[in-house]
Amino acid sequence: MYTLYSYNRSSCSWRVRLALELKSLPYTLIPINLLENDQNSPDYLLINPSGVVPALQTPTGEIITQSIAILEYLEEISFPAGQETFKLLPENLFQRAQIRQLVQVIASDCQPLQNLHVLRRFKALTFNVPDDETARSIWGRHFIQKALNSYNKLVESTMKNFSVGDHVSFADLCLIPQLYNARRFSIDVESEFPGLMEIENNFRKFYPDAFNRAHPDYKCS
Amino acid sequence: MYTLYSYNRSSCSWRVRLALELKSLPYTLIPINLLENDQNSPDYLLINPSGVVPALQTPTGEIITQSIAILEYLEEISFPAGQETFKLLPENLFQRAQIRQLVQVIASDCQPLQNLHVLRRFKALTFNVPDDETARSIWGRHFIQKALNSYNKLVESTMKNFSVGDHVSFADLCLIPQLYNARRFSIDVESEFPGLMEIENNFRKFYPDAFNRAHPDYKCS
Repeated sequence: MYTLYSYNRSSCSWRVRLALELKSLPYTLIPINLLENDQNSPDYLLINPSGVVPALQTPTGEIITQSIAILEYLEEISFPAGQETFKLLPENLFQRAQIRQLVQVIASDCQPLQNLHVLRRFKALTFNVPDDETARSIWGRHFIQKALNSYNKLVESTMKNFSVGDHVSFADLCLIPQLYNARRFSIDVESEFPGLMEIENNFRKFYPDAFNRAHPDYKCS
Repeated sequence: MYTLYSYNRSSCSWRVRLALELKSLPYTLIPINLLENDQNSPDYLLINPSGVVPALQTPTGEIITQSIAILEYLEEISFPAGQETFKLLPENLFQRAQIRQLVQVIASDCQPLQNLHVLRRFKALTFNVPDDETARSIWGRHFIQKALNSYNKLVESTMKNFSVGDHVSFADLCLIPQLYNARRFSIDVESEFPGLMEIENNFRKFYPDAFNRAHPDYKCS
């Protein structure tokens, strides 16, 4: 049994919830409320000294932090014959690279720039940003739009039902939470990124259980 | 022969230069000067529509962007027996996860927040930041210090000569350029992070050729 320390709206936690759900790996979810600063509690800092979510405890008690490191780990662990889990990376090396470049467009070029502690610092350091909405609008939205534009251009040559080909991958696990954040930052995803919307719709259609159970609105996420 | 589109001071390009050097893979370096906006030239946008460095062209003409995707790709390609290249990830799955979590501490939580276009936007949006030095000081330095603190705590239990054990890995390839940036942001790395300095010193000592040839000051980097 895995234990996932997670915050429901944290897009990094959400990526891992999607992976655990698609792979049908049983896990207990421990909520870490970022709005109440749970991530900096002495107990949680013993789990993850960086004070961020997610953190995954493996069945043998090892702790792994950073969502992308967790995804790679869950993909690499082996299972007894006949119990293979769902794969989120293809065999083809160039396709794996294409997927991982999309992952980093979200995980490096996008999410870090719009996350809560960064927005808070932006607002605290500027005299001319009166409220959270302005901070989201002039800071976060800019970077999300830029990154989704990059993502959109990169998938032009690779997209079928999912970001790279017809199989769901790490890239889609990063995209879905980022599209949710884009809407929270008032980006009109439906009209600006219809191709990316198709991926989201296909995810919901092909994997409704994983999609719903990993979602921030799900009662136990 | 590989072709690497690179800017000498780009820490993301530098990670890939270190990998190519350690793996002794022959490559041609094409400089993309970020200060002169080369990354947004029509020619380069055909190579990488995201307009960022690095981008790697493989001997068979495939283009891969995003430094972490490139590192993973170079690690996964196979070579004829007897021509195995230098490995940058160990076999042990948990150690691989520990390395990849350190990679993301730099690649997601640190570098994106202090890079040139982000600093420029921060300065442009604030009335109270008079110059680049102030922007570096109140914005970039804060995030670098925070991330290096995390890195430092995480390696407490894993570090020997390098970040995880005695073998150089992806993590060290991300750390070295980030320490250089930390100094540019006036962080006193020597006194604040003596453990991380040891890793840098070991890198220089054990792999002087790779260390020097990948460095921004090297004549062809």
